[in-house]
Amino acid sequence: MAGPLDGIRILDLTQVLFGPFATMLLSDLGAEVIKIERPEVGDIARGNGPVVRGQSTYFLSLNRGKKSVTLNLATEQGKNVLLKLVKNVDVLVENFKPGTMENLGLSYDKVREHNPAIIYVAGSGFGQYGPYAGKPAFDVIVQAMGGILSITGEEGGPPVRPGVSYGDITAGLFLCVATLAALQERHKSGEGQFVDISMLDCQVTAQENAFVRYLNTGEIPHALGTRHPVMTPFQAFQTKDGYIAVALRGGIKDQWPLFCAAIDRVDIIDDPRFEDGWMRTQNYKVLEPILTDVMKTRTTQEWVIELEQAGIPCGPVNTIEQAAADPQINARDMFIEVEHAEAGKFRVVNTPFKFSRTPNKVDKAAPDLGQHTREVLSQLLGMTHQEIEKLKDASVV
Amino acid sequence: MAGPLDGIRILDLTQVLFGPFATMLLSDLGAEVIKIERPEVGDIARGNGPVVRGQSTYFLSLNRGKKSVTLNLATEQGKNVLLKLVKNVDVLVENFKPGTMENLGLSYDKVREHNPAIIYVAGSGFGQYGPYAGKPAFDVIVQAMGGILSITGEEGGPPVRPGVSYGDITAGLFLCVATLAALQERHKSGEGQFVDISMLDCQVTAQENAFVRYLNTGEIPHALGTRHPVMTPFQAFQTKDGYIAVALRGGIKDQWPLFCAAIDRVDIIDDPRFEDGWMRTQNYKVLEPILTDVMKTRTTQEWVIELEQAGIPCGPVNTIEQAAADPQINARDMFIEVEHAEAGKFRVVNTPFKFSRTPNKVDKAAPDLGQHTREVLSQLLGMTHQEIEKLKDASVV
Repeated sequence: MAGPLDGIRILDLTQVLFGPFATMLLSDLGAEVIKIERPEVGDIARGNGPVVRGQSTYFLSLNRGKKSVTLNLATEQGKNVLLKLVKNVDVLVENFKPGTMENLGLSYDKVREHNPAIIYVAGSGFGQYGPYAGKPAFDVIVQAMGGILSITGEEGGPPVRPGVSYGDITAGLFLCVATLAALQERHKSGEGQFVDISMLDCQVTAQENAFVRYLNTGEIPHALGTRHPVMTPFQAFQTKDGYIAVALRGGIKDQWPLFCAAIDRVDIIDDPRFEDGWMRTQNYKVLEPILTDVMKTRTTQEWVIELEQAGIPCGPVNTIEQAAADPQINARDMFIEVEHAEAGKFRVVNTPFKFSRTPNKVDKAAPDLGQHTREVLSQLLGMTHQEIEKLKDASVV
Repeated sequence: MAGPLDGIRILDLTQVLFGPFATMLLSDLGAEVIKIERPEVGDIARGNGPVVRGQSTYFLSLNRGKKSVTLNLATEQGKNVLLKLVKNVDVLVENFKPGTMENLGLSYDKVREHNPAIIYVAGSGFGQYGPYAGKPAFDVIVQAMGGILSITGEEGGPPVRPGVSYGDITAGLFLCVATLAALQERHKSGEGQFVDISMLDCQVTAQENAFVRYLNTGEIPHALGTRHPVMTPFQAFQTKDGYIAVALRGGIKDQWPLFCAAIDRVDIIDDPRFEDGWMRTQNYKVLEPILTDVMKTRTTQEWVIELEQAGIPCGPVNTIEQAAADPQINARDMFIEVEHAEAGKFRVVNTPFKFSRTPNKVDKAAPDLGQHTREVLSQLLGMTHQEIEKLKDASVV
């Protein structure tokens, strides 16, 4: 099965994580992704550890299913080949520092002369304009500047970075949404456009509740361990043998009485300090010792059974190993095997998209550097063997 | 300007965060989002604090620009109205517990009888099938079960929840991507389909590097404070007056020598223990005290100036207040004002999408409960004033 984006072709000039995560999702959905890499060097993530059987698992996972074409964009011949490829694709994605594509003579204005319908998506740390536009950035920098480190961690403790590259991952997702929205619009207008996605902008949108609270109340959000800023209980508790997450539905069907019954503390159901989620949040200092004491009296599994009987949302705090063995996650085929031509089988993470009529399937490994150069140049551009050899001799591909 | 999704109409049966965040993005992009709410009660997030001038800022922010139509889906008349609306929309999104729509007689099979081209997107905590499919879930539950709490926090410390609702936010983004991919496919086939999005699946995909490392090396990832699991330095350091995030480019253009020069420690440039990012990660216990000592000797701003001169990606660890005042974020118009009919102006967070030809604009407040019931039923379904009054008298709307 080809997936819903079958027929869409993407020229992918991105490296490392933000861009490659986005084009991975588009490739998983059935788009043909042609990854352009520097001859001999390639995506710098090819060197990212851990390396298993000679392969970077980091690179392997992010680039499964893509085609790799080497192209030296610093040469005139390389630029010409790129501009010929541009005529044959729907989307171009790049995540260079702003100005790089202009300096290469590959600005949007130049590219659209060759394909007015192209959707040209520029991802960057800070965006194409603004006082920091020219600055370099990586995930932790935009996470730090966007404020999420200051609201992650123990209450009163040092800043903590969420354990994933939230800056890259969310920006990659926003980039996909933008690309697909522009494709949708193109069906009406027949025209392409330029899309500017900033990782820092994405950080702000992805944390919207923290900003909205601050902007409208003046109260500065801070780190809360595992707690939620406005709902309580909505957090992880230590148990006899681990941790459990518990989250009560609030509002008109507040589960507080049910929860109090499940933990054998019906005496606090009607305490006015704990009347609703907001009040329980305001009076957390009083509530905390009551809850942490009782939750330590049973194992995680015992609590899961008890709370589930009461209909209260809960679940164990899993390690990555435990999550990898979770029956639900496995029933949904979230881990799959891809086979690398030389290095054998690797396990990677699946996409979460489940379509009824056009299911997508991740079944190819990541390409070796330049693995598809000949294929793409001959099939897409009609180049002869001799022409490709000449480019190779000139170190253009 | 209407945005790239102008002309797309979405029937939105979602509540709280996951679904509403997704339809907020689609609305921001120009889609018409018709939010279906229970008469008198509405989305339970209408009660989420903090409440400012009588409005939930939480609800207000997530639902700006949408239309609100009340409809009691437990009544036959309510179902009939919904199925008439179904004929007039491109997409239906719901995030009820699996089985709820079937029990209401509004399953995909039923709905597509009324509109075979509809894209029916079901978002849920665990997905439509699998052993946990029927369980209730909220953000912290799927974050816990997906493993991210175990890799967030201080090294050796208790689990920490990232300071945002990563479970809802990323799932909302994946839901947008899936919806737009299905719309893209519909241009070819003319047919709709059913899309099943599980928050827990999304958690796994959004953390892919942690799982890929574990699945291929057996090593269980754990919390690292602000550090990165495979790159070093790539973290926040305490300074004289705060914290700064620093992230070195690794690989063939490793910035380690530049960084050592900037911190006046050229003596450790050639130390074989610090040869590349991977080695520096392996030998972090030796490296850590050297770096933390030196970084404490200057203020954040002094370090930003020093490191930027060397071209090293860095930035302050901002509080939400500092981020809200950041010149780059403000230059990109990431905070905007919307005006509520009765309650006045509120500041909300913008979307990060910047399109050159079809810019989108967030300029409407969130609707009052049922504010657009009459408008939608008369304009879209051609109902008369009398017909609507009858539905109102019967508590259907």
